[in-house]
Amino acid sequence: MERGTARELLETAVAEARAGLAEGGVPIGAALYGADGTLLGRGHNRRVQDGDPSAHAETAAFRAAGRRRTYADTTMVTTLSPCWYCCGLVRQFGIPRVVIGEARTFQGGHDWLAGLGVEIMLLDDDACAELMTGFIRDRPELWNEDIGR
Amino acid sequence: MERGTARELLETAVAEARAGLAEGGVPIGAALYGADGTLLGRGHNRRVQDGDPSAHAETAAFRAAGRRRTYADTTMVTTLSPCWYCCGLVRQFGIPRVVIGEARTFQGGHDWLAGLGVEIMLLDDDACAELMTGFIRDRPELWNEDIGR
Repeated sequence: MERGTARELLETAVAEARAGLAEGGVPIGAALYGADGTLLGRGHNRRVQDGDPSAHAETAAFRAAGRRRTYADTTMVTTLSPCWYCCGLVRQFGIPRVVIGEARTFQGGHDWLAGLGVEIMLLDDDACAELMTGFIRDRPELWNEDIGR
Repeated sequence: MERGTARELLETAVAEARAGLAEGGVPIGAALYGADGTLLGRGHNRRVQDGDPSAHAETAAFRAAGRRRTYADTTMVTTLSPCWYCCGLVRQFGIPRVVIGEARTFQGGHDWLAGLGVEIMLLDDDACAELMTGFIRDRPELWNEDIGR
């Protein structure tokens, strides 16, 4: 995938992250795309909004995409390096490509996925990093809760 | 944990799996317990029931337990060896112990968890294996969909 295309897809995830922040939640967003650029599902972390610790951005986008027979042609786009829970989702369902906004503020298991053959595109996006930097500064306890620290 | 205690906790997960089967769903159940044997959350796979591919048994039980500051004293009990998605959940949230009904019909990532220091108790339970054997025979396409094959 071209970086320019990846940056366009990232915009959906960033919009989700900003929506989550506006709702008082954890500002991480994600979107699942099909091979032809079709948006299959989008979502954001809903720990605060729904009291649901299982609703990470990536799992919310995956859920929103509904039941699918295969993920072989999909791309998961997320504002932040996916945690082990979300990396496990990518591995189990055979999602072949992950576009990541940034990994400066948190590094999950994306190197593990890369070692398993998943295409990882790390965009090192300033807007994504600023969202998380501000959130971690303002709500450190909520952030630690969200990643089980 | 004593195997006898683990077998008692497994009964909750088996009841969940049977409930899922009765609903026409994937017969995998799970429960999250606290250190003192308190049931924190229970659930079963809800792919069919809710059209939700993110609702595996373990994530459903985790969700049902609500927001928690720590999982350091918890035990995840599941009827089947947890897939990579559910193993990622266990790793990210620091769940230190997993009781598994059986791994004859499917082996997920529980050896990976064991290598990371998670206590794995595999009970090799006949009732759990029979539930899955019958399901995989009767609904192979649904099973493959659930594990992304």
